[in-house]
Amino acid sequence: MTPHLKEALTAAGQAVESVLDSLLPHGAGLEARLYAAMRYATLGAGKRMRPFLALEGAKLFSVAESCALRAAAAVEMVHCYSLVHDDLPAMDDDDLRRGRPTTHKQFDEATAILAGDALLTCAFEVLASPLTHGDPLVRAELTLALAQRAGAEGMVGGQMIDLEAEDHPLDIVGITRLQRMKTGALIGFAAESGAILGKAPLANRHALVAYAHDLGLAFQITDDLLDVEGSADEVGKKTGKDAARGKATFVSVLGAERARAQARMLADQAVRHLEPFGGKADLLRDLARWVVERRA
Amino acid sequence: MTPHLKEALTAAGQAVESVLDSLLPHGAGLEARLYAAMRYATLGAGKRMRPFLALEGAKLFSVAESCALRAAAAVEMVHCYSLVHDDLPAMDDDDLRRGRPTTHKQFDEATAILAGDALLTCAFEVLASPLTHGDPLVRAELTLALAQRAGAEGMVGGQMIDLEAEDHPLDIVGITRLQRMKTGALIGFAAESGAILGKAPLANRHALVAYAHDLGLAFQITDDLLDVEGSADEVGKKTGKDAARGKATFVSVLGAERARAQARMLADQAVRHLEPFGGKADLLRDLARWVVERRA
Repeated sequence: MTPHLKEALTAAGQAVESVLDSLLPHGAGLEARLYAAMRYATLGAGKRMRPFLALEGAKLFSVAESCALRAAAAVEMVHCYSLVHDDLPAMDDDDLRRGRPTTHKQFDEATAILAGDALLTCAFEVLASPLTHGDPLVRAELTLALAQRAGAEGMVGGQMIDLEAEDHPLDIVGITRLQRMKTGALIGFAAESGAILGKAPLANRHALVAYAHDLGLAFQITDDLLDVEGSADEVGKKTGKDAARGKATFVSVLGAERARAQARMLADQAVRHLEPFGGKADLLRDLARWVVERRA
Repeated sequence: MTPHLKEALTAAGQAVESVLDSLLPHGAGLEARLYAAMRYATLGAGKRMRPFLALEGAKLFSVAESCALRAAAAVEMVHCYSLVHDDLPAMDDDDLRRGRPTTHKQFDEATAILAGDALLTCAFEVLASPLTHGDPLVRAELTLALAQRAGAEGMVGGQMIDLEAEDHPLDIVGITRLQRMKTGALIGFAAESGAILGKAPLANRHALVAYAHDLGLAFQITDDLLDVEGSADEVGKKTGKDAARGKATFVSVLGAERARAQARMLADQAVRHLEPFGGKADLLRDLARWVVERRA
């Protein structure tokens, strides 16, 4: 990772952490357990790649940072809710996430389900608030785009396919579609949220979504490679689990070498989508290169 | 129930069923299981009281029915998602709902969790769409209000309190607050959505929320009475379960007679909030009276 990217990722992570902390509820009644679980699931860990995409996308269109940070926080809430629900015993049944017990392990299943529900709802509350943008059309567009990306035909649909894929092995087209829905859709929204906030031309919005889709696939292929090659210690979550379940992944279908080449090709393609934005998009370029080189 | 109310409830139920059917996704891939579960959880059953409130509220301000029906459908999606998640084994662990197997019994837990997530997300997609209202400020206000009512400080927070209450018996103030959050908040949104769509004065919006809160409490107290006195056959879900868990309810704290009197008082109070709307609100008045007289 370039020192410049590392510095920018750290700064973005700290800024969004502080905004998340201020947006998530506090409480003293019996509901305090819910709020504690929402905070546990969201604060103090994570790469914050989606917030970084939202913030860097917004910079291309000179969006006020206070607005961009709220959109970034909303995206991260949705990402964290999806992790909480995906980790549940009825789903992927994971005990470890980001090097810590998963939310249902730290609290209990019911609290984890509710914390996920509340995080998802809170994301829409943040986007629809006048504090996120003075123009209600921008707020409505943010809400609509997030709902489309995160819902039945995006992220949640992707998770359903992922569960079904245990009994219905996918080919490379199927795996690609699954990942576009399960992870690409939300990463796409993160990148385009800056363009929506900046009322950018549709062509710019589409370029950022295309960048994010390629980035997301490159990220996922690298995840699959790490799942096979990395240790839990390095990666911060259980590894080797896809193979143990007999799930088809980019690596199991393509083999490690072709998968690695495919990830690099996608990262190059992602960088090319950024041409219209000139030097302002250099950090996004660095990110695409890092995504395929990372070890965790 | 007055024949007029019965007719209007039936008509509203049929209209919202048809809109829900058109709004919920269809699909042929591995995600089809998710879509089937969303449809199972939403279509073909339910009192449709929240959609009715949304439609009748909208009529007070001469809102186009096509707009009101979309808001009504969105509210019902959120209601149905909350039932799916509340019924899960980790929560209330119910096998029967509306006289049918609960969604996780009919499908499986993972699919039920995802169907709930997708229904919640879909509700926001519907509200934020230009088809729901041409004015983006109205769309943003609908989204914001729903998120506030349905989230951590509303419905989801109420469900957390309800779960915690098994170990922390509530007094009457606590039970009232729990029910305001768990059921009153969303019923409040249903009623106020018509006022938001109609750009009604804030005083009218508040009057409808006050009506709905009293109606919701009266409804809940009657539910508690039916839980003690009704049979599963009549009510369409397992009865006697609150008592079995030692949960404090309006009936266990007040006794059946005082609880019934309280429900009637709340229904009367609900009706008084409708004064500003004259004869146009007669069906809402009939509903408040029926809520405390129903046997199921």
